[in-house]
Amino acid sequence: MLTLYDNLDSGNGYKVRLLLRLLGIPFDRVEMDIWAGATRTQTFLARNPNGRIPTLALEDGTHLPESNAILAYLADGTPYWPADRLARAQVLQWMFFEQYSHEPFIAVSRSLLRHQPESPERAAKLDALKPKGLDALGVMETHLAGRAWFVGDAVSIGDIALFAYTHVAGEGGFDLGPFANITAWIDRIRALPGFTPMTQP
Amino acid sequence: MLTLYDNLDSGNGYKVRLLLRLLGIPFDRVEMDIWAGATRTQTFLARNPNGRIPTLALEDGTHLPESNAILAYLADGTPYWPADRLARAQVLQWMFFEQYSHEPFIAVSRSLLRHQPESPERAAKLDALKPKGLDALGVMETHLAGRAWFVGDAVSIGDIALFAYTHVAGEGGFDLGPFANITAWIDRIRALPGFTPMTQP
Repeated sequence: MLTLYDNLDSGNGYKVRLLLRLLGIPFDRVEMDIWAGATRTQTFLARNPNGRIPTLALEDGTHLPESNAILAYLADGTPYWPADRLARAQVLQWMFFEQYSHEPFIAVSRSLLRHQPESPERAAKLDALKPKGLDALGVMETHLAGRAWFVGDAVSIGDIALFAYTHVAGEGGFDLGPFANITAWIDRIRALPGFTPMTQP
Repeated sequence: MLTLYDNLDSGNGYKVRLLLRLLGIPFDRVEMDIWAGATRTQTFLARNPNGRIPTLALEDGTHLPESNAILAYLADGTPYWPADRLARAQVLQWMFFEQYSHEPFIAVSRSLLRHQPESPERAAKLDALKPKGLDALGVMETHLAGRAWFVGDAVSIGDIALFAYTHVAGEGGFDLGPFANITAWIDRIRALPGFTPMTQP
């Protein structure tokens, strides 16, 4: 049985939970209290020296960190990661976009609003993150014009990776109202057989 | 012929140049003056809506952005990206680590030192980035204990991705002296047949 070290509030964790359920793969889940230092203990650092969740424990004892690498591992050989060389790379393109140009602005804004008390410093941080988050949403909105999914004509782990923090962008202060292509794409993901919401452990 | 939109000062561009040369793949190179807005023109945004280099133009006219996705495309089917499912994911693990936990601190420090005049604001930014960059180098140093390469027993695109900004970390104010495993690994990369330095266009 796979074991997922996870946190219910984490979009990076949710990506993995959601794909496991879409693929019908059973797993155990360990809720890690990040705010209490659970990822910084010696025990956990031996599993992932970078001290982050999600980390997936495989049946042979290997621990695989990095949400998007875990998605690639789970999706290898399934339709969620196409075998065609270019399509495969384009799926990765959107996953690297997600970690570099999206998550650091949209997920970080959400985290500030949920876990830091209101203050002038918090407001200044949110103001700095806002235009970069809007840029990322703009790139997605433009790309989705006339497209159902990010790569090719089927859902892939590129969509799953981007869905996690995009669908809760409102919790980071980003109004998705003006992004009609993104909201239609969010509805397509929610309609997938096996879909489970972020709040489901 | 492949065309690489590139900038000589960019480690993300260098990753791609280096792999193309290690694989012996000919390519044209277009130097993009990032600081003069070359990646923000309508023409370039039509190639990569996220407005960044490197972007690789394929022979069929497709433009592929994201340095690490380009590496995966070029390395697919070569020993630089192993076919084994777990090894493949572990290579990606280090590439996502590079973009999320390494580049934003080490490459950004280097960029500040090279492209921003000295000021109290610059010094404060560098001070904030320093511990996170050192954390990333610490994770690499620990992982390389007893290992020649990041995944398995052969060089992969995980090594190439991490090499680009690590070998010039000194230009970002990071002294590699205390990191003996990293400096030995840098020497192994430099000894690869076909290796070319960052300064080579």
